[in-house]
Amino acid sequence: MITDADIDHIAGLLTLRERTTFTLFATRSTLVGLQANPIFNALASGVVERRCLAPGEPAELVDGVRAELFRVPGKIPLYLENPGRLPATDAETDETVGVELTDGKRKALYIPCCGKITEALRARIYGADLLLFDGTVFHDDELIRENVGEKTGRRMGHLPIAGPDGSIQALAEVAVGRKIYIHINNTNPIWRHDSPERHAIAEYGWEIAFDGMEVTL
Amino acid sequence: MITDADIDHIAGLLTLRERTTFTLFATRSTLVGLQANPIFNALASGVVERRCLAPGEPAELVDGVRAELFRVPGKIPLYLENPGRLPATDAETDETVGVELTDGKRKALYIPCCGKITEALRARIYGADLLLFDGTVFHDDELIRENVGEKTGRRMGHLPIAGPDGSIQALAEVAVGRKIYIHINNTNPIWRHDSPERHAIAEYGWEIAFDGMEVTL
Repeated sequence: MITDADIDHIAGLLTLRERTTFTLFATRSTLVGLQANPIFNALASGVVERRCLAPGEPAELVDGVRAELFRVPGKIPLYLENPGRLPATDAETDETVGVELTDGKRKALYIPCCGKITEALRARIYGADLLLFDGTVFHDDELIRENVGEKTGRRMGHLPIAGPDGSIQALAEVAVGRKIYIHINNTNPIWRHDSPERHAIAEYGWEIAFDGMEVTL
Repeated sequence: MITDADIDHIAGLLTLRERTTFTLFATRSTLVGLQANPIFNALASGVVERRCLAPGEPAELVDGVRAELFRVPGKIPLYLENPGRLPATDAETDETVGVELTDGKRKALYIPCCGKITEALRARIYGADLLLFDGTVFHDDELIRENVGEKTGRRMGHLPIAGPDGSIQALAEVAVGRKIYIHINNTNPIWRHDSPERHAIAEYGWEIAFDGMEVTL
């Protein structure tokens, strides 16, 4: 399942081009984004089936496990931006979605990109057994501070972790089984084990994802 | 410098999208191939300059080091192939080129993809101080033998190492300072230190490239 067509979400497909059969689920917008790049024809259509999934239309992935996509405030892929024009960064379209996975008893949410936490999103998260959430930046302006970029987290469609309307505060009162930050940028100080930012997220009950992590619910 | 627009040659560009300034040299065919995939707009044109280089037209890369592209028998990128139609696999077009690097005293050749060794190519290689050459497959049919694909090396535009017109034999009489195989597929038995194929290439004076290899001439 692919939740948007930006590079960090689709480039990995190029390493899956060894003619292994699988099914790719995504919204029509994301599939169109892929189709606009002939390089992805390397995933031959006879081998890798594209299945278009509209937000709100659940699909059975494997026996007894259903997935449903839902719109999340975000933006179009960087390479489709109009140079010199600021894109909307919290538009709720099919360009950026989250995934709700359930077996009817437990519920997990995968939300790697999120520009804003709306009331509807908060309601969806409430009571989930697992939340994997956008932890791109801790401070909205950390790329600028570190002198590695000119954009804020919000400009890139990513709500920061910190601040009065950052994800920690926005979700502090929302009951969730486990909360894990994913999609963490290399500028994010939570990578450093001794950073006050890492201590702060732990205090609020957040974990940090790592390569090879497995979660059992 | 990029010598063709197939995935293994261009996908790495996507990890160079952090707004670091550099110049990308390639033939017009390869630059058009990149341009046909909007995903590469992530290398913004104001940051990464595209420089079109025609085969046979040398360019100064850094102080005193010149590079010249030259056509090599090969084929178009996989994702541009016409399904159900066999592409030419040893066409000499701007789609597949090699690079000749020289400081006026020493000469190095980079030829990662080569479908056939012609007389002209042999003449160009003759006397080089360093040859980095297409070592994709050892046996033309090794993907089929290993049950991981239906294509021969030649079908993919890669001359095998072995055989009466493979690269070892075709270049056995051509004097070269150092000969190093690059672009080696995961099915190639020369990866195995104890394989007879590895011993065979060493006997003919070939080395195998490795990550981080540095060559001083």
